[in-house]
Amino acid sequence: MSEISGKRRFVAAASTLLAGAFFASRAQAGEATAQLNKVVFQVSDNDPGKWGLALNNAQNVVHDLGADTVALEIVVYGPGIGMLKKESPVATRIAAALKDGMQIVACENTLRAQKLTHADMLPDIGYVPAGVVELMKKQQQGYAYIRP
Amino acid sequence: MSEISGKRRFVAAASTLLAGAFFASRAQAGEATAQLNKVVFQVSDNDPGKWGLALNNAQNVVHDLGADTVALEIVVYGPGIGMLKKESPVATRIAAALKDGMQIVACENTLRAQKLTHADMLPDIGYVPAGVVELMKKQQQGYAYIRP
Amino acid sequence: MSEISGKRRFVAAASTLLAGAFFASRAQAGEATAQLNKVVFQVSDNDPGKWGLALNNAQNVVHDLGADTVALEIVVYGPGIGMLKKESPVATRIAAALKDGMQIVACENTLRAQKLTHADMLPDIGYVPAGVVELMKKQQQGYAYIRP
Repeated sequence: MSEISGKRRFVAAASTLLAGAFFASRAQAGEATAQLNKVVFQVSDNDPGKWGLALNNAQNVVHDLGADTVALEIVVYGPGIGMLKKESPVATRIAAALKDGMQIVACENTLRAQKLTHADMLPDIGYVPAGVVELMKKQQQGYAYIRP
Repeated sequence: MSEISGKRRFVAAASTLLAGAFFASRAQAGEATAQLNKVVFQVSDNDPGKWGLALNNAQNVVHDLGADTVALEIVVYGPGIGMLKKESPVATRIAAALKDGMQIVACENTLRAQKLTHADMLPDIGYVPAGVVELMKKQQQGYAYIRP
Repeated sequence: MSEISGKRRFVAAASTLLAGAFFASRAQAGEATAQLNKVVFQVSDNDPGKWGLALNNAQNVVHDLGADTVALEIVVYGPGIGMLKKESPVATRIAAALKDGMQIVACENTLRAQKLTHADMLPDIGYVPAGVVELMKKQQQGYAYIRP
């Protein structure tokens, strides 16, 4: 009896270990599927033409894939920061993009360097400590990277 | 006897499970190897200098790694679309790149926006519904992304 | 006795296999963690402003995440190669970045094309056979890609 129960304990332990391994690999597969429509855009040029292009690109993604299946973030930093200032030539389009569920974030490092405060910026945008670090993190989370 | 055969069944079952785990991890390693030479290039600037650079970059990849080991795609969209028009200054190089087995695709969204048809474009190129979505998909399939 | 020792051998063998599976999956998790702060920057524009931006970006990453947790490489090629020539306007900053532990590498293909030798370049930088291939490899190794 004790021998059988010993064997059963081993079988149970092995099953648990193996189940763990299989759940882990299933979780990895699930992650791959979820990655399908994750995308992060970089805006770092002081070029309103590029700002419009980035917004066009983002809109196309949402339109073609469906807003519900897309996690989309636009990271704005460095010389691109003007895109998100109150007087931005694309202010109306930013408001529309936010309404569509896109994440649009400005880099706090850039704000400090350019002596800007949140009061200088468009309403409802988000903030990240460092634009480049945000772009790294998103890629590590399976986001595709697009630099328009 | 029945005890031994029971043990054998368990050994067989455990072996199957473990083999599954090992095939899975070997498949992951295989995928990593297959990813080695997948690369997608983005061409989205209206700048013939950039078109030449993208083609140089692509040629270097094929030359350095060997055509047989490389899956290479050039995605052309937005202001870059002129690269693939019939009158493109790099038309001859595009033809050569296609002959070398590179995939070169134009964005249908861009064609529509610029009122272009396939008849306006170089022969033998491919088409994708949306350039940016194509760039996302390729990255999700393990392609490295290069924006020249 | 022999039955017990047979069972022990099996348990030992199974444990080894399972341990292998777990070390492998722990290694994968470890890799994911290690990837957190891997980043490769591309410098391919003949634009000293971009060279400064790339160095600012890289510095921010090291500053924000801590030098010990970051593997950072700057790949310089094509029209960007002037960043690493002896007369580079950012020579002092390159020296400082190298001292901070960043990898900064020049593309040998570009050197050949521009008839440059190592003697024309800044000291202590590294070299890679092909800049674009290096960018591909780093991405395949889990590095995030940033094109400033």
